[in-house]
Amino acid sequence: MKRAASTPPPMHGNEMRYNPATGRWVIYALSRRQRPRELIGSREGARTEPAYDELCPFCPGHEQDLPPILLEYGRGDSHRQIRVVRNKYPALTPEGDLKRVCQGMYMRMEGYGHHEVLIESPEHNRQIPVMTPEEVELIIEAYHRRYLKLIGVQKNLLVVIFRNYGRRAGASLMHPHSQIISTGVVPGHVREMEYRAQGYFDQWGSCMYCDMLAEELSAGVRIIHANRSFVSFIPYAAAQPFEIWIMPREHKAHFGDISAEEKTDLASSLHAMLRRIQERLNDPDYNYVIHSSAKYRSDEPQAHWFLQIGPKLTTRAGFEIGSGMSINTSLPEDDAAFLMPDPLPEKGAGNASQE
Amino acid sequence: MKRAASTPPPMHGNEMRYNPATGRWVIYALSRRQRPRELIGSREGARTEPAYDELCPFCPGHEQDLPPILLEYGRGDSHRQIRVVRNKYPALTPEGDLKRVCQGMYMRMEGYGHHEVLIESPEHNRQIPVMTPEEVELIIEAYHRRYLKLIGVQKNLLVVIFRNYGRRAGASLMHPHSQIISTGVVPGHVREMEYRAQGYFDQWGSCMYCDMLAEELSAGVRIIHANRSFVSFIPYAAAQPFEIWIMPREHKAHFGDISAEEKTDLASSLHAMLRRIQERLNDPDYNYVIHSSAKYRSDEPQAHWFLQIGPKLTTRAGFEIGSGMSINTSLPEDDAAFLMPDPLPEKGAGNASQE
Repeated sequence: MKRAASTPPPMHGNEMRYNPATGRWVIYALSRRQRPRELIGSREGARTEPAYDELCPFCPGHEQDLPPILLEYGRGDSHRQIRVVRNKYPALTPEGDLKRVCQGMYMRMEGYGHHEVLIESPEHNRQIPVMTPEEVELIIEAYHRRYLKLIGVQKNLLVVIFRNYGRRAGASLMHPHSQIISTGVVPGHVREMEYRAQGYFDQWGSCMYCDMLAEELSAGVRIIHANRSFVSFIPYAAAQPFEIWIMPREHKAHFGDISAEEKTDLASSLHAMLRRIQERLNDPDYNYVIHSSAKYRSDEPQAHWFLQIGPKLTTRAGFEIGSGMSINTSLPEDDAAFLMPDPLPEKGAGNASQE
Repeated sequence: MKRAASTPPPMHGNEMRYNPATGRWVIYALSRRQRPRELIGSREGARTEPAYDELCPFCPGHEQDLPPILLEYGRGDSHRQIRVVRNKYPALTPEGDLKRVCQGMYMRMEGYGHHEVLIESPEHNRQIPVMTPEEVELIIEAYHRRYLKLIGVQKNLLVVIFRNYGRRAGASLMHPHSQIISTGVVPGHVREMEYRAQGYFDQWGSCMYCDMLAEELSAGVRIIHANRSFVSFIPYAAAQPFEIWIMPREHKAHFGDISAEEKTDLASSLHAMLRRIQERLNDPDYNYVIHSSAKYRSDEPQAHWFLQIGPKLTTRAGFEIGSGMSINTSLPEDDAAFLMPDPLPEKGAGNASQE
């Protein structure tokens, strides 16, 4: 990976960048950095939680209150590690019907879908940054198994895997967990990204995401981490500070097609990125989500799955709601430099308790 | 307005509704209401601020630190009431150039546009709910003047008027203020709403928003407030709890075409709605934004401007980011009933200090 290459030449004043994947302009408002509100919270280092919380429904001993367990396993013959259950307060349920019902000029239907919770560890405070890479790989393995299971259900058209960490990111429980939702519709937002990638393919004859990856590897200035199968970078037109895309080097539309080798490497990339933002950004709340193609599109040459991490450091306000444009107070190149291993010594690197 | 009409018949379990204006499905997850996190904050009544804060840059006496004043006026020969200035930390500046610059496969340009702050009162704590309707009308008048001024600038293609109230809504200062941003591009999000309205017009031969208004007036169950020129309602497929649309009865694409009578009535509707959410929802943070057509579309038969209010009671999380769908924990009909005058006596109604 070359690093020296093309830092974009500075522009007069602020700058706008176009994201070809979403069709959205992002405004880089660097002068707004001087506002009193700071980007990075004042918390000193990682938050602390006990290893066991007797009020937490995901801690061991509350199994009688959990919905039926769908999947449970550990490494080799070790103790139980991962547990997948139906969400107790589901947004969507498999009993729903997809029949559309007209109501005047409007339309509605029952809330069909699956909503599962993946409890990532029996320990209440064992978040991904303190797990071993092998433990993280178990999470990726569970994602893969549930993804294949759910996309295989005839009525499901999309499976969304995501993780909300902290209250600002929408999490109501701190126990390490991810969520999986399947839907019986393809949302307009997913179709729009599909159309844009298709338009690009029809014009250039190549996958937009493969080209983006080549561009990032060539420019070098927005890459934070890379291994055998994945490259982690701040996208050129990141909509918010420290947004990270973990992109597979190999072109695949469908997360379900991830290989065994890729699962190991995704675990390693995810682990590294979540540790990095915890250490460098004072343990911020964040969301991540796996973008994968809708059903029937998994062989399309233009689609390319990836994982997107968004630390919650800023607030979506009136202008964003009205225009769909974002105002980002820092440049992707600066964010990448801040997250690269060089500027600060890697805290805890080689620390046996963390690796 | 008839109220008894068509409450939608209940569905089994959760429900999904389609918003024809945005093309987005919204999931109504009523069971999720039982989660520990409460929708309405624990704050008891309105927040309190002093009438004057010597550290606030918008309070009188800090004029030397303000950017040049663009507009300033009051009622008749009364003291100064409204003041519009350039934003000191602008997201966009009029010096920017609209020339697109390629950078590898990407594209960028300078951050062209106007970014203004409308200081709504000299008093630090004179928020809209405690203003007189006449004072609110002065704000609407200022919106109108600046809108006409900015949309008249040749390079501007869109003008967005918005208000962020409270930290969760992205406001860094509590002094009563709104913001106005003009852009030299039409954002994809605005175009998408335009296309959907155009598709509807091409199919049905009428304005989608006019039809929505007729539908709401006929159903009656989502309307909160109505006067001579405006109807305020929770849209059928509201993306979040207590989202309110204030819709002009008369079909106009362009906020710039608002009449004198409509300005009076919009002030009255906005005043009533902001008081209502302050009283009933414990003074929540909120954003509002005026949706108006992009330039060159102001004569189109399908576009219809309106004002959207979004109280910040929930958090956009991983699923929303990945799918573009929203999970709403309450039904629009229930929200409307909660905000209607009937269930609680109007606090402060007839109170001379508030009217």
